[in-house]
Amino acid sequence: MPVNLTPPAKAQLLPVAGVFLGVTEANIKRENRKDLLVMQLSEGARVAGVFTQNRFCAAPVIVAREHLAQPDGIRALVVNTGNANAGTGEQGMQDARTTCAALAGLLDCKASQILPFSTGVIMEPLPVGKIAAGLTGCVANMRTDNWHDAAHAIMTTDIVAKAISKQVTINGVTLTITGIAKGSGMIHPNMATMLGYIATDAAVAQPLLQRMVTEAANRSFNCITVDGDTSTNDALMLIATGQAALPEIRDEGSAEFAALQAAVSEAAIYLAQAIVRDGEGATKFITVQVEGGKNEAECKQIGYAIARSPLVKTAFFASDPNLGRILAAIGYAGVADLDVDVLKLYLDDVLVAENGGRAASYREEDGQRVMQQSDITIRVVLGRGAAKATLWTCDFSYDYVKINASYRS
Amino acid sequence: MPVNLTPPAKAQLLPVAGVFLGVTEANIKRENRKDLLVMQLSEGARVAGVFTQNRFCAAPVIVAREHLAQPDGIRALVVNTGNANAGTGEQGMQDARTTCAALAGLLDCKASQILPFSTGVIMEPLPVGKIAAGLTGCVANMRTDNWHDAAHAIMTTDIVAKAISKQVTINGVTLTITGIAKGSGMIHPNMATMLGYIATDAAVAQPLLQRMVTEAANRSFNCITVDGDTSTNDALMLIATGQAALPEIRDEGSAEFAALQAAVSEAAIYLAQAIVRDGEGATKFITVQVEGGKNEAECKQIGYAIARSPLVKTAFFASDPNLGRILAAIGYAGVADLDVDVLKLYLDDVLVAENGGRAASYREEDGQRVMQQSDITIRVVLGRGAAKATLWTCDFSYDYVKINASYRS
Repeated sequence: MPVNLTPPAKAQLLPVAGVFLGVTEANIKRENRKDLLVMQLSEGARVAGVFTQNRFCAAPVIVAREHLAQPDGIRALVVNTGNANAGTGEQGMQDARTTCAALAGLLDCKASQILPFSTGVIMEPLPVGKIAAGLTGCVANMRTDNWHDAAHAIMTTDIVAKAISKQVTINGVTLTITGIAKGSGMIHPNMATMLGYIATDAAVAQPLLQRMVTEAANRSFNCITVDGDTSTNDALMLIATGQAALPEIRDEGSAEFAALQAAVSEAAIYLAQAIVRDGEGATKFITVQVEGGKNEAECKQIGYAIARSPLVKTAFFASDPNLGRILAAIGYAGVADLDVDVLKLYLDDVLVAENGGRAASYREEDGQRVMQQSDITIRVVLGRGAAKATLWTCDFSYDYVKINASYRS
Repeated sequence: MPVNLTPPAKAQLLPVAGVFLGVTEANIKRENRKDLLVMQLSEGARVAGVFTQNRFCAAPVIVAREHLAQPDGIRALVVNTGNANAGTGEQGMQDARTTCAALAGLLDCKASQILPFSTGVIMEPLPVGKIAAGLTGCVANMRTDNWHDAAHAIMTTDIVAKAISKQVTINGVTLTITGIAKGSGMIHPNMATMLGYIATDAAVAQPLLQRMVTEAANRSFNCITVDGDTSTNDALMLIATGQAALPEIRDEGSAEFAALQAAVSEAAIYLAQAIVRDGEGATKFITVQVEGGKNEAECKQIGYAIARSPLVKTAFFASDPNLGRILAAIGYAGVADLDVDVLKLYLDDVLVAENGGRAASYREEDGQRVMQQSDITIRVVLGRGAAKATLWTCDFSYDYVKINASYRS
């Protein structure tokens, strides 16, 4: 079950002026579930995004990148769950284009003004006929207060829908930021297997919007891992409709940019953590903090070695303070000149290891007490610099194996 | 249960002249099991080895490296299971030295002529008193035909003991090679969590012996992964006693060197594969063959991305041909200019994917048939060069989680 993750209440999800959402049951993989989402944008809305670095990226990722590069503005996004349209070759590309063309026909715009997204099983043909048929239902369902349904329509193995709204007042104008995300397994940068959509009614110049989404991703979705598998379909999109009364943000050095960036990043961090809290089979939410490094890269390297180690993750599942496994992971992370005698390892506030071994003050019952919590922080102090990095991961349970051994059945 | 792995019959394990083995029950972690091994070597025997690259390497690894660098010949190796003496700081170093000194007293040699090895739980103090007390029993038990007991005395979570003997005749002289290894979890290069000892009665010059063990490790133990965790204690030792009638091998280009190298590598490959077959919770033995690469490094990189992916490994456990997960792993392996449209993916002889997607000829029942086997080959043909690499791994089952969630209890 998800770790300390409350499903979003419908009333907490605020409409963003200029974003209209419609969902339907298109029967893509299963009957009787919402599995298709269209987000229509008002004219003049801007969209920027970051995508998976996987070389085997899905057809919709290729098409979405292509369409984002077109000069005409994006008018809608379409997202299906139940099928990733990845590893589907030339047919997959055609299917993604067909989806865009079908929606463009309904919305009276160009196919290149549509961004397609898919999530689900890999290497199976996309049931494009069902999707095209379902689009009519989505368009008929279009409303601005539909974020709650939208969050549900993009879920795969997620147990809890992930959504958040925030408001920030800049120069007396209240801006709204609402975001949704999905993801549970195949989670690792860059990116996690996930789709994320964050919209604001602010007006932001295009290059700044790209910088904003990249920064938000680096501080959130690029700091999580469930199983170390980088997906073929990951995408985080940031939409700025420009419907609020605040003048367009054009200066990266401005207070307005900084305030909006902070709010967008906070929303992204909430969604990224929600994905880990709902990680496949998760029973613990683990924050891995590595500090005192020479640079951020080595802090992340050590953090990920810990965060993706099956031995560390099964020990956390068992609430067993077999913490030598964390030392082993630090040691094999690949930081060649690391001096293990100066580093310190903490579990929450408990000093576990120093001087190359177990701390004299460490008592097994203290480690045991922390291990039994559902939220735990592993802190590694390297003692060789001022850089740091924070990652989030979950434990590794029987249910992870169960979910992934039976994913297609 | 181990995958197609027959325990070694005692009669198949041939003595190596100049190697005397003694085991005892020292009660290190549990009662009533052999957990301490001494291998005494005849005077003039040479030893070379390779060790873990983990920065948090265990105290005995540090001491063994130090003693190997001494000019006096090595006279004995001592191996305990039940405690890794890793993450034990200065006390751990003292304990490793105390172990050597105690054995040196019994064998009338210098402490620096002893190589210590430990395997088991990390970050717990070594019960050095029990070990010192047990050494007497080992010395009293010393015999040349004791390889079978020796293989058992070094096991941790291993279900089956791992041992092999080979003979090779060079210039009319029959040489014997006998090796043992242990390892099951925390298995990943460099090295796998494992200890390996291979002895031959050949005479080999010291620098050639080092080259021979490095080459054997690269072709065997550095080609396996169970869980992606590189241990703190890994070591592979190659012993050449020089008791056979063949003159010392001194020329790396000679036929004698090549013949012995081949036999030693074969023994190492058998032992490495045995570790994977007995991998924690394993139900399938998977060979990952990557060919047509620009260089061996990128073939290994892609091979390891597949071999350590929890999603791939759980799919094999379920016999579910959810083979898109293999494409995803290939895609995120980090080969930046990889063209996914030219590569081919095979499962045994079944062509699964080409042209960036599922092969037209692929039928689910063919994939299903191969997935149900206990020995399976994943073959990836990159189509960009002539390099190749072969790795071995196992699937990921409920039992892996069970074993590692309860390792210390």
